[in-house]
Amino acid sequence: MTDLKPQLIRFALHGGAGDMPPKDHGYAEQQQAMREIAERAQAALIAGTTALDVVQQAVEALEDCPLFNAGHGAVLNREGVAELDAAIMDGDGRAGAVGACQRVRNPVQLARALLDDGRHVMFAGPNADAAAQRHGIALADPAYFVTELRAAQQKKALASNRIVLDHDEPFGDAKGTVGAVARDGFGNLAAATSTGGMTNKIPGRVGDSPIIGAGTWANNATCAVSATGHGESYIRANLAAQMHWRMALACASLEAAADEALEDVREIGGTGGLIAIAANGDMVLPHTTTGMFRASFSGDGAVATGALD
Amino acid sequence: MTDLKPQLIRFALHGGAGDMPPKDHGYAEQQQAMREIAERAQAALIAGTTALDVVQQAVEALEDCPLFNAGHGAVLNREGVAELDAAIMDGDGRAGAVGACQRVRNPVQLARALLDDGRHVMFAGPNADAAAQRHGIALADPAYFVTELRAAQQKKALASNRIVLDHDEPFGDAKGTVGAVARDGFGNLAAATSTGGMTNKIPGRVGDSPIIGAGTWANNATCAVSATGHGESYIRANLAAQMHWRMALACASLEAAADEALEDVREIGGTGGLIAIAANGDMVLPHTTTGMFRASFSGDGAVATGALD
Repeated sequence: MTDLKPQLIRFALHGGAGDMPPKDHGYAEQQQAMREIAERAQAALIAGTTALDVVQQAVEALEDCPLFNAGHGAVLNREGVAELDAAIMDGDGRAGAVGACQRVRNPVQLARALLDDGRHVMFAGPNADAAAQRHGIALADPAYFVTELRAAQQKKALASNRIVLDHDEPFGDAKGTVGAVARDGFGNLAAATSTGGMTNKIPGRVGDSPIIGAGTWANNATCAVSATGHGESYIRANLAAQMHWRMALACASLEAAADEALEDVREIGGTGGLIAIAANGDMVLPHTTTGMFRASFSGDGAVATGALD
Repeated sequence: MTDLKPQLIRFALHGGAGDMPPKDHGYAEQQQAMREIAERAQAALIAGTTALDVVQQAVEALEDCPLFNAGHGAVLNREGVAELDAAIMDGDGRAGAVGACQRVRNPVQLARALLDDGRHVMFAGPNADAAAQRHGIALADPAYFVTELRAAQQKKALASNRIVLDHDEPFGDAKGTVGAVARDGFGNLAAATSTGGMTNKIPGRVGDSPIIGAGTWANNATCAVSATGHGESYIRANLAAQMHWRMALACASLEAAADEALEDVREIGGTGGLIAIAANGDMVLPHTTTGMFRASFSGDGAVATGALD
């Protein structure tokens, strides 16, 4: 293992992008939650924890936090049930993903176990829950995921027969899909994403988060990407891998790659954002919406957070 | 709609790539089945049927045929159950996909219904079966998919605790994953893929076939691709979309794009093949295995079939 170089360290976190209403409190609670998780990630990276471990830990913390759309506090499908998608990818090319599971307490934990196991990249449906059990990963009762706010949001969406993007929720402060990208002190990149998808979605729907190349991607030679937005558009745009290919094949900068990928999403009719870190240390947090919950830092510098802008 | 130009028509079909044992009969039955399906596709394309409709029809026919690993005659998971993956993509960017469903008689039909519906790209697990029902798509009893040969293959794999690539089955003539790519007389491209995955796979596993950008991709500006091989490697290589990006960003020929994508798969440790058609009319059917079941034609030319070579 090469020596740890603290100046190489980069980290970014997102908690969903969307056209969110301004609030007097400026979503201070969400920003504080993300700041704390980012500060723990910083301490871990400086102590020599790998990018892969750090993105998993950060996403697990966001899954446990009811303020975001993942794990406990995820949005609910048309039947009032949380169906969870997650993925993780290491810059060395290993990956794990889980779609539409209903009982895995921390879906990103199962994605990581699949990455480590190496036989299968992706599991979906109730059999994903069974796979978690075999890997010794904690399950939870479906009721664990459901918060009062999400139940009310789903009932409202059902009454108007709408499928609502998490971050466009017309009321309530609980926010969107979560994800993390990191570059560790050894030069490795990693990305992870976790979500409950869209409020009042049709049961069984799988979004972009667990699709390797759509919502999640990492390659040590180019970039690590975690996306948030209209999943169907992100899948059709091959968004996260598209950034990798633009950098690998067309020498695009991280910023140019992100702009072009989000322009593809816009042409398809979708909106959203992403967080990405490049092998050269560049970091971008673009979004085509009015806001995106985020936290980031470089090296041992201060953690910056953001919401509406 | 522009006038139909028969000289633009291209079509290719695959029935799985693998290191298959030579057989005295040269897999004549499989080649004949593929020839008949390709001839029907040719008549349809000449009559003005779109690429999208033709790839769907061809894959449905292969799903109905017990000689291949899709629909009736699909390989079975560790519990002796067929779990089916499929996807379809139109060169205009629309897509539909289904993972790990157990009761949809023709999984590619559900993928097509999702493409047409436009709200969600992908469904997975038992809820995919429920989605099929809502779209008026025929369901089948799980026993419909199971053939004697596949049940014997699964028992043998289970006894040796192995997960076996469909095309590497040590005995029996039933072959692999199926897929079709087409370029119609109006210049549209489309791709579709369907599979039962790997023999004795762990229940709930989703392979590359239904992952848009991995096993299936189409873009009218570049190419249509359907893959067959070690799915996990194809997902990690972003194989099908990789070919699109190489053509779109690096001006690669279809042949060069396919070679480089399969080289990525090889570096990850996987083998397999693919079929692809380019916007300019190029067509390739490469494989890194000893054989790939295939049929193809250009315009109103003769249908060529192949197996071992």
